[in-house]
Amino acid sequence: MDHRFEPTRYHNSFGSHAPVAQVRDGDRIMTTTLDCRGHDAGDHPATDVRPNPLTGPFYVEGAAPGDVLAVELERIAASRDTAIAKTMVADHLLEPETLRGLPPAEQIIWQLDRERGLAWPQEPPRGLEGLCVPLAPMLGCLGVAPAGGQAISSATSGPHGGNMDWRGTAAGATLYLPVFQEGALLFLGDGHAAQGDGEIVGQGLETSMDVTLRVRIVRGWEARWPRAETATHLMTLGNARPMEEALQHATSEMLRWLGAGYGLDASAASTLLGQCVRYEVGNVYDPAFTMVCLLEKRWLP
Amino acid sequence: MDHRFEPTRYHNSFGSHAPVAQVRDGDRIMTTTLDCRGHDAGDHPATDVRPNPLTGPFYVEGAAPGDVLAVELERIAASRDTAIAKTMVADHLLEPETLRGLPPAEQIIWQLDRERGLAWPQEPPRGLEGLCVPLAPMLGCLGVAPAGGQAISSATSGPHGGNMDWRGTAAGATLYLPVFQEGALLFLGDGHAAQGDGEIVGQGLETSMDVTLRVRIVRGWEARWPRAETATHLMTLGNARPMEEALQHATSEMLRWLGAGYGLDASAASTLLGQCVRYEVGNVYDPAFTMVCLLEKRWLP
Amino acid sequence: MDHRFEPTRYHNSFGSHAPVAQVRDGDRIMTTTLDCRGHDAGDHPATDVRPNPLTGPFYVEGAAPGDVLAVELERIAASRDTAIAKTMVADHLLEPETLRGLPPAEQIIWQLDRERGLAWPQEPPRGLEGLCVPLAPMLGCLGVAPAGGQAISSATSGPHGGNMDWRGTAAGATLYLPVFQEGALLFLGDGHAAQGDGEIVGQGLETSMDVTLRVRIVRGWEARWPRAETATHLMTLGNARPMEEALQHATSEMLRWLGAGYGLDASAASTLLGQCVRYEVGNVYDPAFTMVCLLEKRWLP
Amino acid sequence: MDHRFEPTRYHNSFGSHAPVAQVRDGDRIMTTTLDCRGHDAGDHPATDVRPNPLTGPFYVEGAAPGDVLAVELERIAASRDTAIAKTMVADHLLEPETLRGLPPAEQIIWQLDRERGLAWPQEPPRGLEGLCVPLAPMLGCLGVAPAGGQAISSATSGPHGGNMDWRGTAAGATLYLPVFQEGALLFLGDGHAAQGDGEIVGQGLETSMDVTLRVRIVRGWEARWPRAETATHLMTLGNARPMEEALQHATSEMLRWLGAGYGLDASAASTLLGQCVRYEVGNVYDPAFTMVCLLEKRWLP
Repeated sequence: MDHRFEPTRYHNSFGSHAPVAQVRDGDRIMTTTLDCRGHDAGDHPATDVRPNPLTGPFYVEGAAPGDVLAVELERIAASRDTAIAKTMVADHLLEPETLRGLPPAEQIIWQLDRERGLAWPQEPPRGLEGLCVPLAPMLGCLGVAPAGGQAISSATSGPHGGNMDWRGTAAGATLYLPVFQEGALLFLGDGHAAQGDGEIVGQGLETSMDVTLRVRIVRGWEARWPRAETATHLMTLGNARPMEEALQHATSEMLRWLGAGYGLDASAASTLLGQCVRYEVGNVYDPAFTMVCLLEKRWLP
Repeated sequence: MDHRFEPTRYHNSFGSHAPVAQVRDGDRIMTTTLDCRGHDAGDHPATDVRPNPLTGPFYVEGAAPGDVLAVELERIAASRDTAIAKTMVADHLLEPETLRGLPPAEQIIWQLDRERGLAWPQEPPRGLEGLCVPLAPMLGCLGVAPAGGQAISSATSGPHGGNMDWRGTAAGATLYLPVFQEGALLFLGDGHAAQGDGEIVGQGLETSMDVTLRVRIVRGWEARWPRAETATHLMTLGNARPMEEALQHATSEMLRWLGAGYGLDASAASTLLGQCVRYEVGNVYDPAFTMVCLLEKRWLP
Repeated sequence: MDHRFEPTRYHNSFGSHAPVAQVRDGDRIMTTTLDCRGHDAGDHPATDVRPNPLTGPFYVEGAAPGDVLAVELERIAASRDTAIAKTMVADHLLEPETLRGLPPAEQIIWQLDRERGLAWPQEPPRGLEGLCVPLAPMLGCLGVAPAGGQAISSATSGPHGGNMDWRGTAAGATLYLPVFQEGALLFLGDGHAAQGDGEIVGQGLETSMDVTLRVRIVRGWEARWPRAETATHLMTLGNARPMEEALQHATSEMLRWLGAGYGLDASAASTLLGQCVRYEVGNVYDPAFTMVCLLEKRWLP
Repeated sequence: MDHRFEPTRYHNSFGSHAPVAQVRDGDRIMTTTLDCRGHDAGDHPATDVRPNPLTGPFYVEGAAPGDVLAVELERIAASRDTAIAKTMVADHLLEPETLRGLPPAEQIIWQLDRERGLAWPQEPPRGLEGLCVPLAPMLGCLGVAPAGGQAISSATSGPHGGNMDWRGTAAGATLYLPVFQEGALLFLGDGHAAQGDGEIVGQGLETSMDVTLRVRIVRGWEARWPRAETATHLMTLGNARPMEEALQHATSEMLRWLGAGYGLDASAASTLLGQCVRYEVGNVYDPAFTMVCLLEKRWLP
């Protein structure tokens, strides 16, 4: 069944909030998200909720703690012709000794050409006059209600997903989120028309989005951290600080997936990962950092 | 001028050791490296020096502290038909709570087909019977003598390069190493016929190598950390622990490069990196971790 | 005014939950806390809420975001004669390579002699037959509702305080907590009859407590992190991971306190701290770690 | 036997350098150290070697890899009436967002009153006019030659000891250093007339020192990291980055000591440490950080 849902209120935390809609295993949701500061498709402020106002939560009937919620991202598309982005690498991502001389971050406007799939700064800084980057729309925030009745800010992430700012949260990918509460309670938001690894300036090309996704309930996986899949890759995500711990979670989760899902014991899985693994860097701007462990499916048994 | 150099003794540290040969700006060196445990092209033990016995150091006439040594990697090719590799992800790269049940690492032999450019485990673990990966030969160790008369183990890395275990240290790339001692004193070793990101099992496909490289002296760069370049990318490398600090160094070094080399001030460079940067994970096995900051050249002014 | 409050329900998160009682600036609260697994003064299970069931929240009339809530700890006393404690240093606090051979943690019972102020294991492990340690009762959990409507697990900590497991949260100390929500919403729990630094086995001597405290509203402080004070010391607490970041917060908060409170600019405060600062280690068991920066008052202007 | 040794040349690395003197198990050494920038008892520059010029190395006859060198610190006393110290907490120890407004570090002179054991800034910053702190002389650098022929800068630390900047390296303490090279090769330097935890401004009260110490060879300990002992405490030191890893080494080393030295298995040792351990913060300024694990001897079997 298809649901078209137009949000009227927003949350700034992933928590056990009252559902905005109830959907079933296999249903499709067509909805919208505001940009990180709450502006809508008309670039008008639509909420005071900060940061990263979230659409949702969607209650998925039958999803129970221990299950996994598969979120198939069918379409993520900017819903207006502008985005904003900051202009300075975050303080904590630079050597402390290089910080003192740097100017503060500002926020500039990027023009989006949705037809041709391109973006460029409206008033480019000197030296970037010809810069024009391809659109690669994605969601900075995707997650479910966390464990133990917690409500965790939309500025950070955890086992429940959250603000992972990973370029891979894009159309064509399926994200698998561990379910901690009845109904899973799915939230989404913080769309980026494009973004470098790590969201190192603290913002991608922040804009409002139209999103189409399908939800499915997966049982028996014992996933502890988010997983993802495309036509070509298996991926696991760790959200923690420091990066080493995020990498530990992502790598351990991949071992679990290769074990229970593909029959590889820890030695076989390690032998494979040792020579074939790739890592990507998700958000390194927020309190929890995201590391992604990737394995090409062609190496699987 | 071309130098063919066949090593007879090896070092296990990057330090101000007596040069094995003297070369000039622009010279080509053709030499060999042992594998990580000291075996040569005949798979015979050729030294007791451990770990990662290094070929070199080569003294580059005219290279002085403050310069940069450009190392153009022209050819890196396995010199025998076998490699070894461990079978278990390193303890510190897994969640502590998953460690207790895991078996210890063993070491297995991989068969290399140098003609077809493929590798596979001689006795594959169950589930990996058909595994066959492409060769992608690289050097785990490349570096110069560090500052202050230090001699730093070939098991770790720093501003001088070292054991960075980065897949990008491969033919077609030029590595730029800050020079700290007269003559730079270039070392190389620890070849891998292929390797996953991070060298997470503590070994790539460890084998002996034939290496051809050219050295050039670059002046006026004020590089503090290794840089690299291919036909398509600029790259900077930070070697430190934790990963956050390695990432800080790599990112700050890229800002310096974009500033002095391409006229982008910190805001312009940040605006560019924010939406276009990529990161790769080098060694996360050893005491210092390697993070690589990448920028496609097509975005440059 | 004095309030005697006997809790009947508990929370496992610091959040904007419905207050259990309303108190005024200067009021005294006499109440009780359960032990970490929900047992009361009779060692009977009193709740299913896990982990660390919290007493509260107490709504302090007039406390508003930007204020600081001073919590004067007048009395913290075990309310029964037993405590429990685990028997193994946490996995993540040991070298990964030492983990494999270690037995799993168990939980043993300690006998408390409240009159003489002593504790010992009821069935001491071999070699600890004569062990008898002094009681030093403290609260593992003390905090207010965090910012942004979050509900943060009682197993971790943040700018709002939380599960800091610091030996200094003891009678005679005043804790100063930044207020993020109307009424501050004070929670407490997780009493320890004694505890080593860091709570490295994941538990102190976990027992139920009688607690007497007074609350006061402090205005104009601009505190970003918890502070504390005794007759002899100023203290500031950072709660984050990794420890370096917790130390950054604690040290920066001390600079702010010495600046606004004692008229020392950053150079003067640094000159003082450089030669006189002390650090203590709070919780290093949970997702966020606690570092405490201490300065003896005798050095103050 | 007593040796009086007046150094004439210095090293800026802990390495397998030519010994300056040969001593025997049980011998006493009376010598001097320069301050961190190479000034002597007359405050005259005595060397260009930087940073932290080291006295030594002393070759201890019979000390072999696998042994432990016990260094009994009998006397550490400032040899002049002034010290220098920086005036700003190090950049990496403050929240990045607080850095931009801060002035750069300067270096001021402290007056030492060696008779009364006091120190104060010659020109105190505003607000510190009456500041006067007790002398507590210590050595910032104490270590032996590291493993594998390495030469490690006197600005950092490791299993060999090194620049640990721990207040406990003081008269009355015995430091136990793992031996990696024949003769151990003991170095010392970087005296501080006093110092706060962490050496957070990058300097203690830096001055020249007179030092008396005795060396003893301890066999059969299997120590991997430095240990220390006073009349009241056992202590173990981990030197690594990040602090978590330093704490892992220190805690694991204490388990090893309690096991082999006092017959406590890991459960018994954990039970004891869990309620009785203390931690101190050594150097957090340099590339490797020092964490110290302390246990009062009165708790030992």
